[in-house]
Order: sequence, then C-alpha cells, then structure tokens
Amino acid sequence: MAGKVYLIGAGPGDPDLLTVRAAKLLQAAEVVVHDRLVSPEIMALIPAPARRIAVGKAAGLHSVPQDRINALLVELALEGQTVIRLKGGDPLIFGRGSEEAEELAAAGISYAYVPGITAAQGVSASTGVPLTHRGLATGVRYVTGHRARDAVLDLAWDSLADPDTTLVVYMGAANMAEIAARLIAAGMPVDLPILAVAHATTPREVRMPSTLAQIGADLARAPMEAPVLFIIGRVAGLYDTAALPLPRELRAPQLRVVGNG
Amino acid sequence: MAGKVYLIGAGPGDPDLLTVRAAKLLQAAEVVVHDRLVSPEIMALIPAPARRIAVGKAAGLHSVPQDRINALLVELALEGQTVIRLKGGDPLIFGRGSEEAEELAAAGISYAYVPGITAAQGVSASTGVPLTHRGLATGVRYVTGHRARDAVLDLAWDSLADPDTTLVVYMGAANMAEIAARLIAAGMPVDLPILAVAHATTPREVRMPSTLAQIGADLARAPMEAPVLFIIGRVAGLYDTAALPLPRELRAPQLRVVGNG
Ligand SMILES: C[S@@+](CC[C@H](N)C(=O)[O-])C[C@H]1O[C@@H](n2cnc3c(N)ncnc32)[C@H](O)[C@@H]1O
Ligand SMILES: C[S@@+](CC[C@H](N)C(=O)[O-])C[C@H]1O[C@@H](n2cnc3c(N)ncnc32)[C@H](O)[C@@H]1O
Repeated sequence: MAGKVYLIGAGPGDPDLLTVRAAKLLQAAEVVVHDRLVSPEIMALIPAPARRIAVGKAAGLHSVPQDRINALLVELALEGQTVIRLKGGDPLIFGRGSEEAEELAAAGISYAYVPGITAAQGVSASTGVPLTHRGLATGVRYVTGHRARDAVLDLAWDSLADPDTTLVVYMGAANMAEIAARLIAAGMPVDLPILAVAHATTPREVRMPSTLAQIGADLARAPMEAPVLFIIGRVAGLYDTAALPLPRELRAPQLRVVGNG
Repeated sequence: MAGKVYLIGAGPGDPDLLTVRAAKLLQAAEVVVHDRLVSPEIMALIPAPARRIAVGKAAGLHSVPQDRINALLVELALEGQTVIRLKGGDPLIFGRGSEEAEELAAAGISYAYVPGITAAQGVSASTGVPLTHRGLATGVRYVTGHRARDAVLDLAWDSLADPDTTLVVYMGAANMAEIAARLIAAGMPVDLPILAVAHATTPREVRMPSTLAQIGADLARAPMEAPVLFIIGRVAGLYDTAALPLPRELRAPQLRVVGNG
C-alpha cells in the first residue's frame, strides 16, 4: 500500500512558530524531504533515525529540478512510507506545493497540506511592523522579485504603486534596486519606508530599515544573506519609531553576525 | 510590576493550526481577552481557572469599541497579570493588533506578537487551492470587502482587476455581489473562478465554488454563515477538478449543517 505525503509549511525558522500539527508530524517522521531554506533549529526536531533528503535551492549550489523532486515524492510514497515534504514558510505561497500535489494526485497518492507561517508574517510579528493598519494600509500584497536568468522583471508596476497597500517582496534581494527605481518611476514617494529582514525569527535575524530611494545603496554597502524579505509601505515606518517602541527585551537580536546555527 | 501582553493569532479555527508558541501560552493562561471569531475548539484549550473576556464582533451583537479593548488590556496588565489577547487568524492581518500595541507601548507595557495562520492560508490548505501557482498566479493580495455603514466600497478596482494575482477578500460576504460586478466592469472575465469558504478548518467548514458572474446569485440562494472568505482567481479553478483531485479521505467535510460545536 502506498504511503501518504504531507506537504508541510515549516514557517520562517523559529521552531515555536511551527503549527502544532507540523510539530507532531515531524516528531513521528520516517523520511523528510526538505528545502534548504528550513532552519537548522527546525531540522533538529526530526528524530535521529529518520531519513533526511535535502532538495531545493541554496546559494551557490545547484538545486534539484522540480520534476525530480516530484518523482522522488511519488517514489518514496510508492515504497509505502509516510513522507514529510517540508518547505520554508507556507507550502502554497511561493512554495510550489501545489505542483507537487498535482504529480501525487496523478500517481494516485494521498496527500494533505499543513499550512505554515509565511515569511511576511514572521517578519511582521518579529519586528512589530503590521501588514495592515488602520490609516496606513488597507490591504497587503505578496509578490516575487525573482526573474529568470536574462529575463526582464515582469511586474505590473502601475498596479503595484499603490501607497494604501503594503507590498511584500519575496526573493527580491538581487533585484531590489531595480524594483525600487521602477516603483518610484510609477509614482511611489522616494521616502516610502522599506524594512529588509534576513533570517527572520531565527537567532541570525538581521534588519535594515531604509527607503525606496536608499535601499539600492544600502544593500550595496551592507549586503544581506539570503533569505531576505522586504516590506514596502507606510507600515514599515512604524518600525523603531515613537509610535511603536517595541520593548527591547522582547526583540530579536539585531545586526548579529550571521552564523551557521 | 505590570504584566506582559501577548497579542496572539489563533489561526483559522483548527486547534492543531495554532503555532506551538500560541498553544504553550494558552495552556498557561491566567486571563484571555478573545475575539468572538476564535473557534470553540480553541477556546476549549484554555485552562478552566483562567478568566475569559469576550470582545470583538459577533453577528447581531454589539462589539466592544476598540478604545475600550485597548483600555482593558492596559488595565489588566497594570494589575500585574500576564494577558493573552487572542485573535482569529494573524494579529497583524486585518487584526488591529498593532493598534492595541500602540496603546500598550504608550502605557509603558511590554508586549509581544505571536503570528497565526491567516484565514487565506487555512482555506488554501484545507481546500487545496494554492495562493500562488506557476502559470496561474504570480502573487497574492489580501483586501477587505467591508465598508463603513452608508459608505461606498472604496477599492482601487483597476489595480485589483489583475488576472495574474490571486485576490483574497476578507469580510466580504455582505458586499460580494457588488465586488464581483465591479471587478467585471474593470475587465475581469465573467467566468473567473471564485471559491467561498465559511468556517474554514473547523468541522463546520462549508465551501461554495462559483464564478464572478454567479457569486451574487449563489450567495442569495444559499447564504453562508460568517466568517466567510473568498478566493478569486484562476487558482480557484483548481478546486475539485481533474487537475487537483484531492483524495477524498483527506478532505474536510463539505456542506455540513452549521452547528455551534
Ligand atoms: C521560494 S520563497 C518561499 C516562501 C515560503 N513558501 C513562505 O511562505 O515564506 C523564498 C523566499 O522567502 C522569503 N523568506 C523565507 N523565509 C524567510 C526568513 N526567515 N526571513 C526572511 N525571508 C524569508 C525570502 O524572501 C526568500 O527569498
Ligand atoms: C476581522 S477579519 C480577521 C482576519 C484574521 N486576523 C486573519 O488573519 O484571518 C475577519 C474575516 O476573516 C475571515 N476569516 C477568519 N477566519 C475564517 C475562517 N475560519 N473561515 C473563513 N473565513 C475566515 C473572514 O473573511 C472574516 O470576515
């Protein structure tokens, strides 16, 4: 009998931000197919005898192609194992969980999703910058700043240039200078606040508050290690101001040297 | 000495979708100030001796005004208690968590956020409809369909009418017919799929697949009990199709009679 596959979101990194369901499933894991984005603190929760298979991107390393990951999941399930497919954040937000699910369904294999705290929410809770806030943002939007090699950034700039919507950019570090310039060209104010956060909710969290006009130069001067998330919009102005003085003892460490956990 | 306040997201309803941190804090709670949106299954996790204070909206009932909630949190913390402020979903997505935090900060009271699975993610994981999907949606956007009494719906329709972005409407049941009509007027296809889901991730979950042209009539014929979330976009077309045949046994029950359970 074929095993089931659980497509699980690991959240942004802090093991306490796993869902209860994800934590239970991880503790009982036989085989875990995980992205390299999953934090070492979460990987440490997997029982010692369980098999771990790393797939997905890491800076400077080749990633396993998506169709190979799909085939691997099918193969493991057909061997009769319960498979944990562990992804950073939420499996259905820039996570390709539904592509894997399509393959599993085509092979007649049962699967279920377990949602995870997405990076935007991890950054938001950790830094105190809300995604919506009365008078500052009536909604929030998640986009990707990634582009295929040699392709142009294909974003609908006019629609994105909406000062009433918080704009969250995933996978945007490499192209942030261009994204900021395009948003300014589309009418967004040069001093619109941005908060860039790397390794949110982990002991390696680093934050950089900036503005649309400054972010390119700031990143050139002080490059941030992936993964980095950008929150663009008036809400980012609540970071570290008199309006929202987060008590120091509740803050994650700032500007810590980036380690390997 | 003043107590701390934890602004906690309870997620969409299933207690297993609490974060580990939220579950730990709830189990040790002394006093819980909760929205009426928090599910009875989650309320059942609070220890019997803890004080429970219901605030926030319920259909047909007056809600406690926001400034009164803010004052209550300050008051309880000044009494020296550790206060759990429990909200549906995520506290910083249409949750007003940051308004409460501003008051706490002004009163010199320590607080921390604990993120929660937002309704969009609960619906997505439960129904198998992804929020982003290669070839169908390059990003996702959360808006509110609520409007103040007698006010007009103040949404940027041209910017919202983007077939490449999944549109998630919170608090939209009362105005969905108008929202759909406006999106069509702004150029969205009449047959664009919508999935409406009430009480997602609870035993009372109900789903209604529809289209932009049909949703108004569908809701008039079969009104859904709050809370209801709408996912609008091509990804909603993956619901219940050959492209994503979610194994039946992993599905939440459908069209169950709404109870109080
Ligand atoms: C392939 S996407 C996966 C997103 C994931 N499914 C989620 O829901 O968060 C990878 C991007 O997520 C963001 N990200 C994930 N974890 C993060 C963290 N702990 N801190 C900052 N950004 C993070 C970064 O923008 C990174 O480039
Ligand atoms: C005031 S907003 C609060 C949103 C919450 N902070 C979150 O992140 O999900 C209330 C709206 O959330 C949505 N909602 C919350 N829980 C839901 C659930 N279990 N099923 C469907 N919709 C839900 C509905 O659209 C409802 O009108």
